[in-house]
Amino acid sequence: MKKSYNVAVVGATGVVGQTQLCVLEERRFPVAELRPLASGRSAGQMVRFRGRDVEVREATPDAFAGVDIVFFAATAELSKTLAPEAVRRGAVVIDKSSTWRMDPRVPLVVPEINPEAVAKHEGIISCPNCTTIGFVMALEPIRRLAGVRSVTVTTLQAVSGAGREGIEELAAQERAAADGKEAPEPHAFARPIFENVLPLCERFRDDGYSTEEVKLLDETRKILSDPEIKVAMTCVRVPVPVGHSCSMLVETVRPVTPAAAQAALAAFPGVRLVDDPSHNVFPTPLDVSGRDEVLVGRVRRDLTSDRLWLWSVIDNLRKGAATNAVQIAEELIARKLI
Amino acid sequence: MKKSYNVAVVGATGVVGQTQLCVLEERRFPVAELRPLASGRSAGQMVRFRGRDVEVREATPDAFAGVDIVFFAATAELSKTLAPEAVRRGAVVIDKSSTWRMDPRVPLVVPEINPEAVAKHEGIISCPNCTTIGFVMALEPIRRLAGVRSVTVTTLQAVSGAGREGIEELAAQERAAADGKEAPEPHAFARPIFENVLPLCERFRDDGYSTEEVKLLDETRKILSDPEIKVAMTCVRVPVPVGHSCSMLVETVRPVTPAAAQAALAAFPGVRLVDDPSHNVFPTPLDVSGRDEVLVGRVRRDLTSDRLWLWSVIDNLRKGAATNAVQIAEELIARKLI
Repeated sequence: MKKSYNVAVVGATGVVGQTQLCVLEERRFPVAELRPLASGRSAGQMVRFRGRDVEVREATPDAFAGVDIVFFAATAELSKTLAPEAVRRGAVVIDKSSTWRMDPRVPLVVPEINPEAVAKHEGIISCPNCTTIGFVMALEPIRRLAGVRSVTVTTLQAVSGAGREGIEELAAQERAAADGKEAPEPHAFARPIFENVLPLCERFRDDGYSTEEVKLLDETRKILSDPEIKVAMTCVRVPVPVGHSCSMLVETVRPVTPAAAQAALAAFPGVRLVDDPSHNVFPTPLDVSGRDEVLVGRVRRDLTSDRLWLWSVIDNLRKGAATNAVQIAEELIARKLI
Repeated sequence: MKKSYNVAVVGATGVVGQTQLCVLEERRFPVAELRPLASGRSAGQMVRFRGRDVEVREATPDAFAGVDIVFFAATAELSKTLAPEAVRRGAVVIDKSSTWRMDPRVPLVVPEINPEAVAKHEGIISCPNCTTIGFVMALEPIRRLAGVRSVTVTTLQAVSGAGREGIEELAAQERAAADGKEAPEPHAFARPIFENVLPLCERFRDDGYSTEEVKLLDETRKILSDPEIKVAMTCVRVPVPVGHSCSMLVETVRPVTPAAAQAALAAFPGVRLVDDPSHNVFPTPLDVSGRDEVLVGRVRRDLTSDRLWLWSVIDNLRKGAATNAVQIAEELIARKLI
């Protein structure tokens, strides 16, 4: 076991990549050399790390020589071609893209839930989708308490889930409205998102589901090692910069009171219970932005069944992406697997 | 049966009241005399109707003398004290507030669904909550086709559901952000709504449900005359000026294919099917604003059960309020009940 590690971040100039650098620094991750990488277009830019400017290099196979850990925070395409190259050069890859998540050789890990899975990697470990992380973090405490048979969820997802393009598109539409001008044609989203909500995240498959929606079912089953759990979902984009919300109705195996569920949520690492309706206390995206905990509130029993309502919010860039990836690396170190 | 009617609008200067005047004019409702009324604070203001300015009078019991139909689009408090006064003076009251909706003597009417209920009134007829109307309009075609046992719904509700105050609060927060200034403390909503979503519409009851949420269950049961139907709900406020969305998962009594559900929705009066994911066609609040039809899309079968997902949007000021109220009056005329 080394004392410190050579770390590459692929996509270092992107929104998640930038957050990745912040989180590595904040958590004092033992970085020996930092190697920020990106597509050829962004090579030559500078990024800030521990008070110094570091030049971004082009992500090529040879850029991984001598690297111990690579965080991929780039496109699925880049992960697909370059992750095996990094592994071939001896690095462990922690990947944020959707490319490897459902590959049976690749662990899909939320460290508070299935940390032991990191041990089984063959070079690549995947981070779940940001929405899935907020969803399973709220679900797991209930599942450990009472088992879960099914969940119905509607998500309300921030524009940063679509990267910098998504953030800039909302901002451009806000500016155009303030100036009384027409906004440019949308390109990050299918329709204007300012003062609107869109029942589409990512893109539609042939069966009428969005790719984002299907991830919630498939990834949840893999993370929880429960191929039977049922997740019914609709994913909605909302005009919020950061913070994905889940409105979830949970059918448990054994009956559970809201008070017991609240206690289980409050005790779960990485979850904070924010739930006092009598004082208008509930979690919102503005509250979670910049934080690593998943906030959960509005815990109550359905009026016509034994099911439980929950409302969770996650910072999709931090715990939904960068923080979860660093936690996976920390787990590898703690288990002396690197 | 008269050829035309003396019509009062209580709350004529409010957002719904203004829409009420528009809709009366657009639909060429047979208005003999229009009497715009409001609280003492707004009396003396002018409103526009059929190209003329009409002075707003204070809503007092005597202001209803000689009036045939009164549309109440004001506070619950004003409806409570003044609706019986209007009835005492011989008028029929069509009320948009929550005051009378669950009163067993008062019909609760969506004219496309239960028009026959208007006949049973004792002077007051209630309009359902705007969210409930968008919800039941999407549900009823499915219910007639296959029966409905239960629905799980998350709503995404526009700020105009909280009246002019709600619209102005979002606008003020947008302006403050554009100017780089701090927004004034929120008062229409518990928390900032710009670039945020709040899992609270109206206010919390002691049981942790919002008053808005419970309406969805109670009013749906009354409109559909089905005390057994189960509605599980979370209501969320979103930074959208006009247009309430419902993300609904419907458990039918008999199995139904998405194609059959789409055909039933397309054939239902007042509903328009907007559903072609292969061309990114789905309804959003921006599309429905200014329209009377409820738009429904994203019709598909749940991936792990026989239930059906639907996504509906309604203009909460028009079909959710003003238009529905005028339709009730039209129904009274068509049935020669006034």
